Formats: sequence, C-alpha cells, structure tokens
Amino acid sequence: MHSLEKLFGPESIAILGASNRKGSVGFSLMSNLVASGYRGVVYPVNPKRKSVLGIRCYKSLAEVPEQVDLAIVATPSFIVPKVVEECVNAGAKSLIVVSSGFGEIGEEGRKLELELGRIIRGTGTRLLGPNCLGYIRTDKRINASFAIRNALPGKMALISQSGALCSGILDWAQKQNVGFKYFISVGSMLDINFADLIEFIGEDKEVESIAIYMESIKDSEEFMKAAKKFSLKSPIIVAKSGRFEESAKAAVSHTGSMAGNDEVFEAAFEKAGIVRVENVQELLGSAQALAKQPLPKGNRLAVITNAGGPGVMATDAVIRNKCRLARLSKKAMERLEKEMPSHWSRSNPIDLLGDAGPELYEKALNVVLGEKGVDGVVVILSPQAISKPVEVARAVAEKAKKPGKTVLACWLGEGFVEQGREVLRKNCVPCYRTPEEAVRVFSYMESYRKNLEILRGERDLEVLGTQKRPVKAKRVLNTYLKKGLKVVSEIDSKKVLESYGIPVNRTVAAKGLREAVEKAREIGFPVVLKVLSPDITHKTEVGGVALNLISEKEVASAFRRIVSKAKRKKPKANILGVSVQKMVARGKAELILGKKEDRIFGPVVVFGAGGIAAEVFGDKSIGLPPITKKQARRIVHKTKISKLFSGRKARVKADLGELEGIISSFSRLALDFPEVEEIDINPLILSNGKFFAVDARIVLKG
Amino acid sequence: MHSLEKLFGPESIAILGASNRKGSVGFSLMSNLVASGYRGVVYPVNPKRKSVLGIRCYKSLAEVPEQVDLAIVATPSFIVPKVVEECVNAGAKSLIVVSSGFGEIGEEGRKLELELGRIIRGTGTRLLGPNCLGYIRTDKRINASFAIRNALPGKMALISQSGALCSGILDWAQKQNVGFKYFISVGSMLDINFADLIEFIGEDKEVESIAIYMESIKDSEEFMKAAKKFSLKSPIIVAKSGRFEESAKAAVSHTGSMAGNDEVFEAAFEKAGIVRVENVQELLGSAQALAKQPLPKGNRLAVITNAGGPGVMATDAVIRNKCRLARLSKKAMERLEKEMPSHWSRSNPIDLLGDAGPELYEKALNVVLGEKGVDGVVVILSPQAISKPVEVARAVAEKAKKPGKTVLACWLGEGFVEQGREVLRKNCVPCYRTPEEAVRVFSYMESYRKNLEILRGERDLEVLGTQKRPVKAKRVLNTYLKKGLKVVSEIDSKKVLESYGIPVNRTVAAKGLREAVEKAREIGFPVVLKVLSPDITHKTEVGGVALNLISEKEVASAFRRIVSKAKRKKPKANILGVSVQKMVARGKAELILGKKEDRIFGPVVVFGAGGIAAEVFGDKSIGLPPITKKQARRIVHKTKISKLFSGRKARVKADLGELEGIISSFSRLALDFPEVEEIDINPLILSNGKFFAVDARIVLKG
Repeated sequence: MHSLEKLFGPESIAILGASNRKGSVGFSLMSNLVASGYRGVVYPVNPKRKSVLGIRCYKSLAEVPEQVDLAIVATPSFIVPKVVEECVNAGAKSLIVVSSGFGEIGEEGRKLELELGRIIRGTGTRLLGPNCLGYIRTDKRINASFAIRNALPGKMALISQSGALCSGILDWAQKQNVGFKYFISVGSMLDINFADLIEFIGEDKEVESIAIYMESIKDSEEFMKAAKKFSLKSPIIVAKSGRFEESAKAAVSHTGSMAGNDEVFEAAFEKAGIVRVENVQELLGSAQALAKQPLPKGNRLAVITNAGGPGVMATDAVIRNKCRLARLSKKAMERLEKEMPSHWSRSNPIDLLGDAGPELYEKALNVVLGEKGVDGVVVILSPQAISKPVEVARAVAEKAKKPGKTVLACWLGEGFVEQGREVLRKNCVPCYRTPEEAVRVFSYMESYRKNLEILRGERDLEVLGTQKRPVKAKRVLNTYLKKGLKVVSEIDSKKVLESYGIPVNRTVAAKGLREAVEKAREIGFPVVLKVLSPDITHKTEVGGVALNLISEKEVASAFRRIVSKAKRKKPKANILGVSVQKMVARGKAELILGKKEDRIFGPVVVFGAGGIAAEVFGDKSIGLPPITKKQARRIVHKTKISKLFSGRKARVKADLGELEGIISSFSRLALDFPEVEEIDINPLILSNGKFFAVDARIVLKG
Repeated sequence: MHSLEKLFGPESIAILGASNRKGSVGFSLMSNLVASGYRGVVYPVNPKRKSVLGIRCYKSLAEVPEQVDLAIVATPSFIVPKVVEECVNAGAKSLIVVSSGFGEIGEEGRKLELELGRIIRGTGTRLLGPNCLGYIRTDKRINASFAIRNALPGKMALISQSGALCSGILDWAQKQNVGFKYFISVGSMLDINFADLIEFIGEDKEVESIAIYMESIKDSEEFMKAAKKFSLKSPIIVAKSGRFEESAKAAVSHTGSMAGNDEVFEAAFEKAGIVRVENVQELLGSAQALAKQPLPKGNRLAVITNAGGPGVMATDAVIRNKCRLARLSKKAMERLEKEMPSHWSRSNPIDLLGDAGPELYEKALNVVLGEKGVDGVVVILSPQAISKPVEVARAVAEKAKKPGKTVLACWLGEGFVEQGREVLRKNCVPCYRTPEEAVRVFSYMESYRKNLEILRGERDLEVLGTQKRPVKAKRVLNTYLKKGLKVVSEIDSKKVLESYGIPVNRTVAAKGLREAVEKAREIGFPVVLKVLSPDITHKTEVGGVALNLISEKEVASAFRRIVSKAKRKKPKANILGVSVQKMVARGKAELILGKKEDRIFGPVVVFGAGGIAAEVFGDKSIGLPPITKKQARRIVHKTKISKLFSGRKARVKADLGELEGIISSFSRLALDFPEVEEIDINPLILSNGKFFAVDARIVLKG
C-alpha cells in the first residue's frame, strides 16, 4: 500500500479545532466535509464544544472511539506540535496541518516547524502542510479543505503551492466547467512534497494530467525522478512564478553569474518532460487540451476562421510561439477552391468569410484534417449577425472526433457564443477566448511532444552514466585536493578537459626564458605566453598575457616583460614561469561552456556566446547533466549565436557533431567530480570548422 | 462645420438594400437603427418592397422626399458604384458602404473600388467603408451598423479595421460593462481613414480615449499629424496585428533588411504618443485605465495583496514590463509595522495575509498613497473563505478617490468576486482578472507618460527643421544625380556625412601608387587601402581591401595587390585607384547607423549593434526622423549594445551626447534629400570614447 493511501482515502477523519463559528477555519473544514457527501465517519475534536454542526464533539483525539485514518489540525500554530504529538500517539495514520505561522513567518515559526518535523520523523505518519488549505478528492466525495468552493468532478489533478490561490482557481474552474479528481494544497511541504504526490497520483490510472502552481521545490532529485516517470505516461503542466529572483545573482564566476535560478528550473522542467506555462489561466487551459486532444506530430498549424482579423492575430501568435503555418497541398487547394465561397482567402489561414455556416466549417475541416502537412487545427468563430455559434460548434466537435490531429477552438466574444463554447468543451474540443490563447496552447502541446522525444531517448543517458572517470583527470584533481588548493591552473584544467576528449590548444609550462623559447619552437608560431602562478587568477589584469608572438625573439622579450610586470604587481606571488600555447585565431564564434552549482538542482551546464555578447546579450542556454548528444543539440539551438554556424543560413562552417560531443562529455565531467565547484571554458573558439578550449579554469569546492 | 458632421449626426438616414428578411444585412441595419431609439427620420430604399419593418419603402433615393444626411448602402458590390452615383446625384451628404467584395477580394474588386473612388472624388460627399459594419453613436442613439449588439453608452471611441471583430468586441465590452460614445468600423478606408476620424473625434471634448484595432494605415503623414494632436490631449491606444509580415523582408541593404515593417509602426506609434497594446482584451482594459485613473509620474509600483502567490506573480510582471517595485520609506515601514498583522510581508509586495478585511486594506493604502516613492498601486484580492470582496472593493474605491496616484485592482476568481469587481469599476478603479494584466496596464500608462514627455519636446524638432541643407552635401549629391549614378563612393558619402557634423575617419582618393604612399604618409600610419571603382560595391569580396598598413613599403605592396586582384576579378570595372584612410582600432563597440525607406512611413533611421551581432542578435532600434537629441537617447537605450557604453554598468567610456548629436544630425540628412534611397554607416566605431563613421555608403533612388 502506498504511504499516502490513508491520507487520500480515509475511512475516518478527525478535525482538531472544529468549530461552529462561521468564518472560522474549523467551521469551514467541518461544513465542507459534511456538505461534500463524505461517506466515512467525521469526528470533530475541540475541548470547548459538545457538538459541531450537530455532530458529537470529542475533547481530544485519544477520546475518539477509533484510530482515525486522517487527522486535520486547525489549531493555532504554537500548540500544533503538542496536538500533532497527541495525534501520532493516538495512532492517526495521516495528518493535514492547515494552520499557518511556521517557516513562512521567520525565525520563531521555523523553530516550530523543526519541532513538528522531529515529532513525526520515524513514526511513519505522513503529514500534508503546514500552512495549506487541505485537499479535495471528488471521486470519493472528500472535501478536506477550507476552500470557498468545492471542485467539480474530473480527471485532472491540481497541486498548488499557494493556498491563497486555490479558491481563485476553483472559482475560475467552475466558470469554465473544468473538473478535478484531486485538488491539493501542499503548503510548506514539511513532509509530503511534489514528488510524493506525483508518485501517488501516478498510480491512479484515471488521472489524465497534473497541473501544478509552483514557487520552488524541495529535493530536486526525487522531484525529477517522479516527474520523468509520470511525464512518460501523462503530461505535467507547471506554472512557476518567481522568474526574476534576485537571489540567483549571487553566483561567483562569470558563467555562474549568468545561470539564473529560473533558467535552471526551465532546463529541469524540459528534461523531466514537464510543460511550463506562463500563468494560472494557461495552466487550466493547457491541461484540458493535453488531456482531451491528441498530441500534434509537429508544429504545422492550420487556421480556419470566419474573419480576417482574428486570422492575422492567430498568425502572429503562430510565429511568436515558434510554430509554423501549415502549407496546404495542391490537392487540398483544388478541393477548397471547389467547395469554398468564391472570395475565400486562398491560403492558410483559411478565411471562410463572415457568413460561413456549419457546412462550410465542416468542409474546410474535412480537407485540412486529411492533409499530411497539417499537425493541428485552430478553428475560429467571430460572431456576426448571421453566425450560428452552437451549430458550428456541433459540426466542429463532430469532425474533431476523427482521431489523429489536434483540434482546438476559439469562439470570440461572451454571451453570444458561450453556449457554443460549452458544446465544444463537452465534446473534448477545448475552446478559448482569443486566437492567441488557442495557438499558445497548441505550442505547449507541441513542446510536450518534443520533451517526450528527448525523454524517451534517456536510455542513451544510461550508457553515458556507465563510463568510468578518466584516470588522468582523477590524478590531476587529486593532486589539488590533497594540497587543499582551490584553483586548478590553466594547463592542468586543460589536461582534465583533454582526458574527456574535449579539444584544447596545446599548452605547456616553461620555467625559464630558454625553456619558453624552446617550447614555442616545438609548438610552432604564433604562440601565446601567460604568466604561471597559483596566486594569480586574473592574468590579464597584471599584464601577464602576451598574444600572437611570431618569433623566438618576440617570445624571449615577452617572457621578460610579463614575468617582471607580474612580479611588480603581485610581489608576494609565487611565480613558476609561464605557460606557452598555440595561438588560435580569434575565429568568428567565441563561445563559453561552463559548469556551475545550482542551489536547488546541483551541477548545471551553461553554453552560450562568449566575449561581449555574453554580457550584453546574455545569449546562453542551460542543461542539466548528464546531457546526451541529442539534448546537446537542443541546448545549442536555443542560443542565437548558433545561427552563425548552424542551420540553413549559417555563415561559418562548423562540425556540429563535434560540438554536441564536447557538451555531452563536458556534462559527464560536471557529474563525475562532486568536489568541483565550477568549470569555465572561456573562450571555446570555433576556428576553421573545429572547436578548441582556448582558456579553461576549474575551481574546487573550498 | 466638420466634413464628418453629417455622417455622425444625421437628421435623416436612408438604407439602400433595406430588407424584411431576417439574417440579411439590410434587415439588421434597419432593425438596429429603429431599435436604438434614433430620433431622426429613416427611409428604407428597395425597389422590390413596399415597406420594411412597417416603414414605407422607396424605390430609389431620388424618390425620397428630402435630401438625406446619410445614405447606407447594403447592395451587392457589383451594383454599388451605380447606387452610390445615384446617392451623390440625389444630394446625400454622406455615405456608408457596408457591402464587401472590393479591394479585399482581388483584381475584380479593386476595379470596382477604383470606380467608386472616381465617383465620389470632388463631390464633397464623404464615404465610410466599403466592407465595413457601419458605426454606433450612443449619445445620439444611432446604431447605423449590422453588429449583433448595441454598444453601452460611454466616453470611449473605438475604431476597428476588422468589421468581423466588432461584434466580438461589443460582446466582451458588454460583459465588462465598458461603454462607448463612438464605435466605428472603418473597412477599406477608400475615403474616410483613421486620420479623419481621430481629427473629428478630437473635437468632441467628452471623449476620454480612442481605442483602435489596426492592421495597416493609409496616408501615414496625416495619421501622424492627427494622432500627435490628439495624444497631447487624451490617449490613443492601438492593438495592431501583423507583427511578422513577411513582406518586410524585401528590403535591399543590410540595414534595410533589418527594419521590419512592424518595428517601424512601433517607432511611429511612440513618436505620435500612441500606446501600443498586445491584443484586443488589453485594448479595452488599458483604455479604461487611461481614461479613469491619473497617469503615474514614474514606474515605481506598490503591490498590496492578501496572498503571497499573486504577489509573486505581480512582481514577475513588474520586472518583465520594465517597471520597478517601489521602495517604501523608513517612515512608511514603521507605520505599517504598527498597523499590519504581526506576520505581514515586511516589504513590497505588502502581503496583508489571508484574513485581511476592508480596514487592513484601507490602512495599507493610506500609507502607500502617502509615499513620495510610489507612482502607482495594484491592489489584489484573492478569495479566501473569510474574504469580503465587495466590502474591500468599497474601501479601495473610497481611498482611490484621493487624487494623485494610479490605483488599479485585481480581484482573482469569477462568481465569488464579480460583484466586488463591479463596485470598483463603477468607482473608476479598473479591475482585472490577473495580477499580470493589472501590472501590464500600469506599464502602458507609464509608457503613455513617457511618450507625452517626448511629444511635448517636439518644439526642439521645429528648430531642427529650420536648418538649411549643407552646401557641400548638396554639391556632392547633385554631381551623382546629374550623372544618373546610384551608388555614392565611400569618400563622397563620408563628405556628405562630414557636412552634417558626423565624425568620419579621414579618407582620400589616390589614383596611382606614388600618390597612395604620399597620402598615407600625410594621414599617418596605420592606414587602410580600398579599391576605388564605381563598379565595385562589395570591395572585400574582390580582395580590394588592405587593413592596418604600417609603412610606406606595406602601402606600396598593398596598392599593387588590391588593384591587380580587383582587375582580375572584375575585368570590366573602371578602377580609379584606391581610397586611403586612417585605420581606426576595431574598438569595443561596433555599431551601425542607417537610413532606409519604409513603404508606409517613408524615411526611417536604424541604429544598433554592428558586425556579427547585427545578424545574430538583431539588436537594433528604429526612429522616425526628425529625431531630437532626447529622442535619440531613447533610441540608443533601447538597444542592448548600449549597456556596454552607457549606464551604471558601462565598461567602455563614451561621449553619449556626441552619439545623440550624430543620430539627430543623421536624421536631418535622412529627411533633407528625398532623392536618397538608403544610407549605411557600417561600422560606426566607438574608439577611445569617440564615435567615427569608418565605412559609409549612400544609394540614390533609381
């Protein structure tokens, strides 16, 4: 039996803090539960009352004649630990703490929360909350919440981290006739977290989708595991707020400072197959579409409309959301030409003109649904004097039953079209208020399909994971770890990269002037000299770098110059000589590849444009390791700089397979050594079609 | 009397094509007009009927006993020209043609439209349409449209280019209790266009705002003039679709190809003071706020909420829309600390917690409205069991009456909060469904304020406009015009720029090798040599450029090399020698400044990042000339590259005043010579804090 079974399917429920006072939480909990038609036994518990809502009230849980499956605690926070301890002792199998006044209010509350944690630890009793609204489960008629409305029955699960938002969502959902099987407010997630719930709901085959309002997560590893498993079966849709969290700025290194917290979430969602939407409205709208309509097989959308304006709006939305307007085949065009009114638009969007009735919509849908080049259709009705919103809705719903393609609708307006919307919704064709919304939802469906494709390729990851750590990398890093040194030198950092098959330009150490000249001759001119010292991290700042040296003479004078400059600027530094390396022509594309440590998700890989572009344009893309070559391709293509060397309009030649391999190998390195705090390849240069790590730095955890 | 007076205030209206057949346009027009309570005389005209809706019907307009102020034509398109001619002959003072089947259907329709144009030209009769829905004017109780609903009375004017959208908008507006004084469907704008309507409505002092749904415009000059004049008084809000028009790609030159049509619209709107919103929903929502609430004085927003989640969403929206969360003063914090519940959020957003009642909202508003550092407030209510949506609404509406600061609201949910929303709306506090919407509307209000600031500085433009064209520029360009040459050489292009005070690096011509060496010595090393030929535009492609020449020897050998290469690659080219110029170090910021010709707005100025960034990141900003220094600053700051040399985090020194001056002078040049097709300064380099046009090309119209 799943550990949440008793929580969500209790045969008896006690409410601690039950009350007859209207407006109080204890009253709402009692009346919601009784009104919902719950078929188990309810025990109000309150030492001050004899009965609540006419039901006999108990002084304490110990007095209740049976061990309850679920105890709901609604007492003031300061006595919650005591009450919960009593519940555990009385054998309550699961708990909901709705009371607020814990971690969210600061130090004092945090202490209470810790205490609560200690009490339930090891008891096997699961706890939802604190600071939550409770939950609603419609199929068992349990409304164990103090929400202002009950949920309509349905097949969706909703999990919200904001209790205050739950009532608003229920209010919206009712208006739009959206039902739920589970409606859960998670609160502070002291014990039960998103992962537990996703796992539990995953065992319920009736649930078609999970919609989540999220602000942050606890235990990213469990979350990712549970989400991946569920996503492979049914969609998870997340609206996460807190995009611009200032706290993400705290990261140290250059690459690090770019890896905004929210962008890591975005990468994690994608990897776990989760569809991220913008806001709570879209949460419900997308969940409906993902549950009711078949997934598109691509991003080519046909638009059928009875008005030009909304067709233009839909087109704008198609391009903005990175989908494409489907091209109609010659055959389809010929058929439409025959069947459409003489002044129809003659292209996609297919404008049936203002007087279009159900038959015309049917004919157009017939043609479009038979097209190989069409992955989905958005059908728009803009009310005109002669429009028949309900009849057209019926016709569209009928046609949409033919399996295979995604059909979404948009009936513009309010009262005049509401009934038509209703007909569509009841027939599993989600209907939206604006063309933009409908197209956006289509794009979310398409992104779920893409996520699934990647997710199903995860077997490649297992192969990646079984590879051994290169001996050379281990040896190099161990030397630093043993000595307690944090910053790995450029030469050694490059050795580590090389051992992972990442191409570097040849770089060697030279203690003295003569050795430097010799090494330069060996490597071949032009070369670069950099001062070599464990105490100097920013070499350019002390004048410790000389580029493009083309002769032995230049090498010699550069050696003297940079060593003496470095000594002058950093008199206490231990200068070991210089590093000599092959000069790589600056190339057209200057990139960066880095690893940083995210507070929530651990190691992340950052790829993007280097140089000025890194700072000014912030053109980067994030992935969670391990990264397969296929995932690497997606990461690369998300950056704008990739247009330079990839795709039809590429102006610079590049071995993209090599780049994908570099990123994939780098992701292994990012995972292989938990002792590493960050890695910076800056720049990674594209020169003559090949990629080279020209400067690199590994920093170990302190 | 304004030429549209009779159209919008007719004492008699004839409807040509009036009908008793339900569902027909002729029937809708008649019944709408009669049902609206029109107080003038209605004359149905239809040769086939004796009466329509019980009103005596006439065989032709000539039969009607008086000269009507307005004739509405609803006959099939092919007889419209004949009917309109009859109307003009019968002395109808104005016309609405609702019939479709003109320009929008192709060649055949275009011919009909041209004919229609010929018929009314010079008659003084004004025509609305064709292919429109007509108009509604609520104060005079005229519904001269075939829309499915009448408009509620109000003080807004709405103009829609999509007739099909009108009914949808009316349906939405009714649901939200939004009223209109004028509701106009413009159709194809054969005669009456946006400019006419804005001008006419501008004379009506009761109108608080104009909302426009636009797809394109005719006569940009008139439009800009009318819009500017109106904007100075009251806001114009536009939702324009067609953002990604493929046709904009047709532009020739590099700079040109970037100036997407829609971006020019954006620049034009800004210059005319127009607020651009994303979609039709926002159109109504923003128009309400702009009409009912005082404009903010800046972008600092305070958020008051009874729930954390929506507060986070609001914060996300604040940052995304480039506003700021207001910082509360010490005094305000102290007062809140005293008056708020003990666990309030202690920062902005001010979270009053779930059980907040009207008094708490009032107290928080009191504090925030008294703050100098707050420009506007968004008040959020998320329904909880104990919330009082109506009472809180009353309290907020009362406080919002205090003049000075913008107050907007967001009541989340549907049925539970609807009454509260109603209370707010009736009291001039616009109330939205989501925090994002409310914040976004605030940001639109703020952008209107900024637009006004610029618009009021237009006097500077008049000064700009009175300056004479430099003699040198005239002389240079005339030479080319006389010879019929299209491409002005780099040297001459730079002369033109120089005459407008735009700094260039010194560039001179040299016919032979010896002259080249001499000129190089004069200019000072290092220099650049480029092949000089009217037949070679892309010099790099023929190997015609040599950079960084540091000695006479290098200049001599470069001369031989590039001239012989050019001869080999372009044997037929007339090679005049080379241009010699000072080599400017590549610098940190490589920019472009260009002028191109927009199909709709004429000359536009494009500024942005150059080099790879121009193509990859598309980082540019567009302005309509003439451009004042103040406007230039806004244009510069819209590009990302400007962060490099401007603002607190600038890494490169720059004389920003100089850059603004360059753009302003360049905008004069862009206007001074209508014969110029395009100008490209590419690159404009920032070197040692100063800007230089390092390469330039002027192309004349062919």
